[in-house]
Amino acid sequence: MKILVIGAAGMIGRKLTQAILDQGGIGGGRVDHMLLADVIEPVVPAGAPATALAVDLGDPGTAARLLADRPDVIFHLAAVVSGEAEVDFEKGYRVNLDGTRALLETIRTTPDYMPRLVFASSLAVFGPPFPARIPDDFAPTPRTSYGIQKLMAESLISDYSRKGMVEGVSLRLPTICIRPGKPNRAASGFFSGILREPLIGQEAVLPVPDSVRHWFASPRSATGFFLHAATMDLAPLDHRRALNMPGLSATVAEQIEALRAVAGQAAVDLIRPEPDALVAGIVEGWASDYDATRAHALGFAAETDFQQIIRAHIEDELDNQASISG
Amino acid sequence: MKILVIGAAGMIGRKLTQAILDQGGIGGGRVDHMLLADVIEPVVPAGAPATALAVDLGDPGTAARLLADRPDVIFHLAAVVSGEAEVDFEKGYRVNLDGTRALLETIRTTPDYMPRLVFASSLAVFGPPFPARIPDDFAPTPRTSYGIQKLMAESLISDYSRKGMVEGVSLRLPTICIRPGKPNRAASGFFSGILREPLIGQEAVLPVPDSVRHWFASPRSATGFFLHAATMDLAPLDHRRALNMPGLSATVAEQIEALRAVAGQAAVDLIRPEPDALVAGIVEGWASDYDATRAHALGFAAETDFQQIIRAHIEDELDNQASISG
Repeated sequence: MKILVIGAAGMIGRKLTQAILDQGGIGGGRVDHMLLADVIEPVVPAGAPATALAVDLGDPGTAARLLADRPDVIFHLAAVVSGEAEVDFEKGYRVNLDGTRALLETIRTTPDYMPRLVFASSLAVFGPPFPARIPDDFAPTPRTSYGIQKLMAESLISDYSRKGMVEGVSLRLPTICIRPGKPNRAASGFFSGILREPLIGQEAVLPVPDSVRHWFASPRSATGFFLHAATMDLAPLDHRRALNMPGLSATVAEQIEALRAVAGQAAVDLIRPEPDALVAGIVEGWASDYDATRAHALGFAAETDFQQIIRAHIEDELDNQASISG
Repeated sequence: MKILVIGAAGMIGRKLTQAILDQGGIGGGRVDHMLLADVIEPVVPAGAPATALAVDLGDPGTAARLLADRPDVIFHLAAVVSGEAEVDFEKGYRVNLDGTRALLETIRTTPDYMPRLVFASSLAVFGPPFPARIPDDFAPTPRTSYGIQKLMAESLISDYSRKGMVEGVSLRLPTICIRPGKPNRAASGFFSGILREPLIGQEAVLPVPDSVRHWFASPRSATGFFLHAATMDLAPLDHRRALNMPGLSATVAEQIEALRAVAGQAAVDLIRPEPDALVAGIVEGWASDYDATRAHALGFAAETDFQQIIRAHIEDELDNQASISG
């Protein structure tokens, strides 16, 4: 089995690659070779049957290079992210739309070739006004170019799949929490930061009221979504190939309560409220709860309480040792 | 005021052109010149300040030719239709997606130019399963390539509009009834045929049970939608630029009752039931009722009973004289 990961240098790409190598394959299929592609050359884990490639998906010819070896499973996680796509209009369309279309066109025009394609889409396809809980049949009306490009890429994947040209499925991921690594400047960064930093004894800033509600899944769940999508029966999806992934709807107060239960009051005391009207305004424009009935019925699963999310982080990122214990 | 009509040779394109010429303009604006474009050269009404152009929107350079004179209002009605887009995959994408994108890109890259763009989209963006009545926030999941291409074009128009590059709006039209002209082989053709033919004393075939419900607007209403969209305030649409147009949900039995009221039993007697399982199956996959609250609130209006639709046809197409009167 040959596997291609596009966007392999990103956080989910690295975890997905490692999970496939650890298991020796996907589902019942044994991995023979992995091609790991990204704009910066991904690191090949030691001894892995894998090759790394630094390419820009927006360049002509990239799709043909990536698919030359006819991978059986393609994970497409590459994207110009939201902020950059908003600033660099042409680059966003070139990579997020045209790059994805080039992959599909290369697949369509390759004789006797119909791989599985698992696409990382985003809940950025949705825009306000939102109902309290978003049902699976809620209309996407993106209010970013990134969201529009993800919606268009999903649409192509649905059509090429319906026509029997590819086995495609698009996964709209919740906000990933706890994101490992250093704090970043993304508006959503604090949702991870207020847990990640206190767990290693460091202070974290909370820029919004603790009544703010949001939609989460752990990196471990996200990896699981992709692995499940790579082998599941796609027939029940019919022509509707984009799925809202399951997650956990929680308030910041519930995040903090879970931190207290797992790591104690000393960890909670490291969270410093510092209201930021700009961040609060951005976050207010995001939906906070999704139904995800279809994905659940299709076998996708995520955490059901926030302590599970925190414990997964401690197991996967902190060698099972938080610096503060309750 | 300069006006461009792309798809000017089609039924709605011709009626829209004539309505603009009859009124001398749109809203308060006086028409100086119209450019009428289509794949076959449109007929220029006698004495009209208009030029005809035969072009393929899918050809490189067409968008630049169409926009060279910087029209103030662009009506984009051109499309490779549903059946053809399903058979000729590449042509559908080239015209319906790439042609529309080329228009938007030409507009974006023309200095100091932000025209009004009114796009003819379609309820083909929706796919089953349907609720009994489709709300404005129901998710489009097209099950034709045509529907996918319309959804992608709408998405582009929403994004370019949100970014202040064009004043765009997309109108998703109901099934037009009564379509003037000869019977055609479209699966939906009988909805018009069972009224149009009896009104001129000819027999018509009804291939489905009279309990079938569908969603209709007259050609007169469709023309009105486009004229309204050309001058309305678009600010209330915010980033959500695609609108389900108002219409009338009616069963075939209700159509027939209206025919009886307007043209008498002799007209109804010309309808010959001839069940066709293929047509019935196709029609069953279509939605039959839409809410259209947003469009109503924005000032779009359609007929509210089927007698109005029949009378509009008699006035507009039959010189106010049906051959049979009740």
